[in-house]
Amino acid sequence: MKRNEATASTLTGSSIIAGIDLFGDAGVLNGTNPATGKALAPAYGLVGADQVARAAEAAAEAFPSYRATSDQDRAAFLESIADNLETIREHLVNRVEAETAIPSARADGELTRTTDQLRLFATILRDGSWHGARIARGDPNRVPSKPDLRMHWISVGPVAVFGASNFPLAFSVAGGDTASALAAGSPVVVKAHPGHPGTSELVGNAIRSAVSEHGIHPGVFSLLFVRDNATAATLVAHPAISAVAFTGSRTAGLALSAAAAARVRPIPVFAEMSSVNPVFLFQSALGQFAERLGVEWVASLSLGVGQLCTSPGIVVMKSGPEAERFLAAAGAAVGGTPNATMLSKGIATRYWDGIATRAAIPGVSLPARGGPSDARNAAQVTLFVTGAQTFLAETSLRDEIFGPSGIVVLVDDEKEFSQVLRALEGQLTVSIHSTDAEPLAVELVACAETVAGRIIFNGWPTGVEVGYATVHGGPYPATTNGQTTSVGALAINRFLRPVSYQNAPGDFLASELKDRNPMGIWREIDGVGSRS
Amino acid sequence: MKRNEATASTLTGSSIIAGIDLFGDAGVLNGTNPATGKALAPAYGLVGADQVARAAEAAAEAFPSYRATSDQDRAAFLESIADNLETIREHLVNRVEAETAIPSARADGELTRTTDQLRLFATILRDGSWHGARIARGDPNRVPSKPDLRMHWISVGPVAVFGASNFPLAFSVAGGDTASALAAGSPVVVKAHPGHPGTSELVGNAIRSAVSEHGIHPGVFSLLFVRDNATAATLVAHPAISAVAFTGSRTAGLALSAAAAARVRPIPVFAEMSSVNPVFLFQSALGQFAERLGVEWVASLSLGVGQLCTSPGIVVMKSGPEAERFLAAAGAAVGGTPNATMLSKGIATRYWDGIATRAAIPGVSLPARGGPSDARNAAQVTLFVTGAQTFLAETSLRDEIFGPSGIVVLVDDEKEFSQVLRALEGQLTVSIHSTDAEPLAVELVACAETVAGRIIFNGWPTGVEVGYATVHGGPYPATTNGQTTSVGALAINRFLRPVSYQNAPGDFLASELKDRNPMGIWREIDGVGSRS
Repeated sequence: MKRNEATASTLTGSSIIAGIDLFGDAGVLNGTNPATGKALAPAYGLVGADQVARAAEAAAEAFPSYRATSDQDRAAFLESIADNLETIREHLVNRVEAETAIPSARADGELTRTTDQLRLFATILRDGSWHGARIARGDPNRVPSKPDLRMHWISVGPVAVFGASNFPLAFSVAGGDTASALAAGSPVVVKAHPGHPGTSELVGNAIRSAVSEHGIHPGVFSLLFVRDNATAATLVAHPAISAVAFTGSRTAGLALSAAAAARVRPIPVFAEMSSVNPVFLFQSALGQFAERLGVEWVASLSLGVGQLCTSPGIVVMKSGPEAERFLAAAGAAVGGTPNATMLSKGIATRYWDGIATRAAIPGVSLPARGGPSDARNAAQVTLFVTGAQTFLAETSLRDEIFGPSGIVVLVDDEKEFSQVLRALEGQLTVSIHSTDAEPLAVELVACAETVAGRIIFNGWPTGVEVGYATVHGGPYPATTNGQTTSVGALAINRFLRPVSYQNAPGDFLASELKDRNPMGIWREIDGVGSRS
Repeated sequence: MKRNEATASTLTGSSIIAGIDLFGDAGVLNGTNPATGKALAPAYGLVGADQVARAAEAAAEAFPSYRATSDQDRAAFLESIADNLETIREHLVNRVEAETAIPSARADGELTRTTDQLRLFATILRDGSWHGARIARGDPNRVPSKPDLRMHWISVGPVAVFGASNFPLAFSVAGGDTASALAAGSPVVVKAHPGHPGTSELVGNAIRSAVSEHGIHPGVFSLLFVRDNATAATLVAHPAISAVAFTGSRTAGLALSAAAAARVRPIPVFAEMSSVNPVFLFQSALGQFAERLGVEWVASLSLGVGQLCTSPGIVVMKSGPEAERFLAAAGAAVGGTPNATMLSKGIATRYWDGIATRAAIPGVSLPARGGPSDARNAAQVTLFVTGAQTFLAETSLRDEIFGPSGIVVLVDDEKEFSQVLRALEGQLTVSIHSTDAEPLAVELVACAETVAGRIIFNGWPTGVEVGYATVHGGPYPATTNGQTTSVGALAINRFLRPVSYQNAPGDFLASELKDRNPMGIWREIDGVGSRS
């Protein structure tokens, strides 16, 4: 085991445990360029359960002082992380492209999204509404006397974050999970995704530098390159960890949930897992825009080589001439879409397997697929078509194929839309194209509300806006907790719990709960909200 | 199987399934007067899994129309339930006393709390802030164009409510769980507690009448007298049920959680389970008020025969003359506290067993217990004393003994307070008596924030005020979800999930999300809250 000092852009292959570089001694891992198949330097030393425990314990040690920092201090800390990432933008974007085949323009945009997220939470901290401060004043003259009660939301404790493969910046080491957890006052232990170790280390160094610049306890952040899944599960099982955030496959998400439920003290797992994001095209829209919609579908479907959580995998419409126009336009668009390299060999293999399996299902036709390609680990855009009866009978057609493939489901009557939607599991999104609020569309929206976290009108689900009214979540199995969002302002709520103070002398109260409110924080007094 | 028509105050022994009386054919159950041991008429017909499924399916049928009712209509519905309960107040109070030995004055107060809760949620519905409406306006000129996003919170779906034994009104058929679920727009299926079947039927009839008066789909409410625990678990397992609310023992709460986790689609269980509610007495308070505090402790401990979730089972203080004064006063108060009948024979038996086991632990002394009593199923107030070392070594001393017993833990130095608190599991409450914000007290409050949902200053934990800033919850195992409360305004959040609408035409939007806001509902636009 050796220790290295690292500058922001030098890669060492080390984990970061409470500010200290630690080159793990439980095997090594290299990043791989999926476009070339070549291993990328450096080798990453993998850590075992002992080092995982050290990181968790350091997070517990950091928790009391970190959660006591002011909103202003935590906001400045998050902004420093964003600034540090900006400083290494070019290096970072290049490393993302090398490790994941995500084109640099897209990686550049993802980095902007990542720094925007950090700054959004800084803004939220400065605003103060996130405290959810409530005061219910007492009345000593009531019989029995009414106590003074004041409540706010505080951090649940240290959070384990599992980096995702498909957003190596926005859903990884300094992604939305880390940003919202740090905003909440939670130390974070990140389990790096093995698909982008160099990216992870660069981002980890940016966070470590910010921790140091602000004089924060170094245990507030650790980054671990972990030996295997069983070792990663020891992070979830560690008593110091109070919540888990994850984006990835259903298998992995459910394994983490099981590990969390098996603890002496079970903890919540906020796992975003799988979604096929159905799209419904009413004739009112399809009749006018069939060709444009076909082209837009293929564009949305092949964005990020289809490796986005919100990729529109199912499009439902009435069979007939409008559907033919849609399919012809989509087919032509597929022909014009170059094959592109996927995130990894494993993902590409699973994609091709999924396509082959689906193509073999009786009643499913294959109207369009991209041309042949020699590119390594590339995906070919592939469209399928089937009828509602086959779709409802063959449950595998409801499953996600991770990559740029979608299926058109043709119904005889738009009345069947709700039936198709009800047959699906919980979704991140449902999209509805309709030029007016016709009764069947209104009915479908009501059904969609019970199925999904976001409903898109006359648009496509890819492109998740990060803001104050974002919901990136949905009923199981889109997520393990459909009462939350992993993107946007409300993502912080996953890591908060309410505490009430009864008849507390002012000296014991946090500033947002004292009688005077000089910062003008929004709070609710006896059920009435104000900044006074 | 026979069906009966029931008036509000006639008992029939029937379950209510979607408005229809159904006398179950899977065995019978009678209420029992714990003070006399006598069975109470009528016999209740128990239902099996088929009837449980019927109730769940009726709830699913009612869900679309019920969740579409206006806030005003649901508020009026809740108020009608409260009014209907008032109409049968005397009958209800008498039945509570007969079935549970809760004195009529106390039952009367609990009924007022119950109707107050229903009216609180009516007020919350009329106010509209509960929607959590947020608008993030779009910008078509941004590159890429920024979508318009609007979100609010909607019902998760039908809720299974398990009535509690110790609050036959406030935590049972029309208790806080039912009131908050109905407010959220969730149909409710109540599993009646076998300890108070007549009370349950009376309350169930009051709800059924209100359902009928308001022309609501009768599936919105069912009340089931269920054969056994395995049958009750089928309610949790039923696909139509989307959440579970429970107050009771840890064993039962964890069994329900396991049933919910084992579903194809897991659902949340909001179970409030056990708490010993530690109280810390600093010398600053103890020196001045030792005698008064001793008397107050015994009063709080014996309130409701100690059968309250917030009963103060542990008191921690420094050994010395002040502690002696406290113990002497507490001992004298115990002598003056009459033995009182517990809720049931089973609860009384477990209480006496718990006392006997604890009295046999080396290092635990028994300074005071109530006098002998011939009363059937009565509890004797029992105080124990031990030192910090014994307390920390003997983990069973941290467990709840359900009933009027508490233990004094004597430490050598107040610096040990935090150590004792950290040794405990998650709690509903922690109480701290201190006349000023001395450093050790400030440190203890910080520790208490991580352990409990409510922190009480210079008071006792019994008496839960139902209001806007109430937190009746806490980290596991006080509850299965420490991010929620089962009492107070925020209890509604347990049954809500967020949904966002992207670029939705106004015709598709709920009133609280339309551009105009004529009702003046509080909402947040681009991060700024207002009623405009």
